Amino acid sequence: MARVSQAHLDARRRQILDAAALCFARNGFHATSMQDVLKEAGLSAGAVYRYFSGKEELIAAIVAEVLGQVRAAFEEAAQQSPPPPPDLLVASVLGRTLAARESLKVDGEPAFPRLVIQVWTETLRNSELAAVLRDGYGAVRQAWARVAEAYQEAGMMRADVPPDDVARTMIAAVLGFLAQQSLFGPTPVDVLRNGLRALMSMPDAPTHL
Amino acid sequence: MARVSQAHLDARRRQILDAAALCFARNGFHATSMQDVLKEAGLSAGAVYRYFSGKEELIAAIVAEVLGQVRAAFEEAAQQSPPPPPDLLVASVLGRTLAARESLKVDGEPAFPRLVIQVWTETLRNSELAAVLRDGYGAVRQAWARVAEAYQEAGMMRADVPPDDVARTMIAAVLGFLAQQSLFGPTPVDVLRNGLRALMSMPDAPTHL
Repeated sequence: MARVSQAHLDARRRQILDAAALCFARNGFHATSMQDVLKEAGLSAGAVYRYFSGKEELIAAIVAEVLGQVRAAFEEAAQQSPPPPPDLLVASVLGRTLAARESLKVDGEPAFPRLVIQVWTETLRNSELAAVLRDGYGAVRQAWARVAEAYQEAGMMRADVPPDDVARTMIAAVLGFLAQQSLFGPTPVDVLRNGLRALMSMPDAPTHL
Repeated sequence: MARVSQAHLDARRRQILDAAALCFARNGFHATSMQDVLKEAGLSAGAVYRYFSGKEELIAAIVAEVLGQVRAAFEEAAQQSPPPPPDLLVASVLGRTLAARESLKVDGEPAFPRLVIQVWTETLRNSELAAVLRDGYGAVRQAWARVAEAYQEAGMMRADVPPDDVARTMIAAVLGFLAQQSLFGPTPVDVLRNGLRALMSMPDAPTHL
């Protein structure tokens, strides 16, 4: 009995988080009310507030889930020697992140890239949300920096570049790739993978140029 | 006389565009009124409407100016054989773009990265603005693809990757780099340059892997 009950609680929690993600992707965090989330989820206020006290907790849970999965994927990669090359690694992690959320759609298009932009913009005026994102992205950045260190230890990457600079650049590429989809439409992850591979094929300048 | 008058017109136009950029960066496109722009510029409605019919024309002019300069820089690079390597090219173009706007500040921090995110988000709900941005970024994307072709012709980049994939990846990295500043604060362009150099130092996979 207890196990069924936990499965039910988990499914309900999932239902609420997905409804909130859809609302935030559609209208942004600021313009979404808890009422909108209840309506989208088809649940009563009592059913929802049992799980989340408000929008802040909802967005914190969504961000923690996505970035927690991403961080775990990079931490796992950093344990391999050497880790998978960055083009494959990024394509694999981003591909899985998108695939896990592909049933969530706004106007027939994947909601996840929209959600990323909406949440990111909101950080310009919501310092609590900015702090939640800063923690989440900070952890991903640390995990990516460990991957870069592993590349350097394996002799796959020049050792005179700070690993954190690599982390920021890789996160930037993924973030910008998602943002572009608002203008140019859904794009296969292979586009980003190809672009990274092309960069990797180029000669880099000697250190003292 | 005519020349002085043109200089005056240009300065007035500049004053209006800078005021609008500040307002959009601070509060977003949607929440900014023409009244806000007039107040920020310290000009009368008559003085402003002589130049711009409304917010749409203002944002179109700002986007056209920034992306026109960026496109011209990449078109010039594509004429060189070979073009400057991508780490140097991106750092140089982005560095100049930021430097030209460094006097524009919101809450003591550079307004330009904020402006980029605000405008990008607005494309989610404003299809006219999305079309303006799509044209502007489309032209930058074409110019970047020509740079990638020139790399490939010079034997500096593997030839089996579509140049447009390289263009999208490079634009993504810059866009994401600007977006990150809303979380992590102003960051020297060298961080992105280092990250790109580190990628370039890595071995790329053979074609048939």
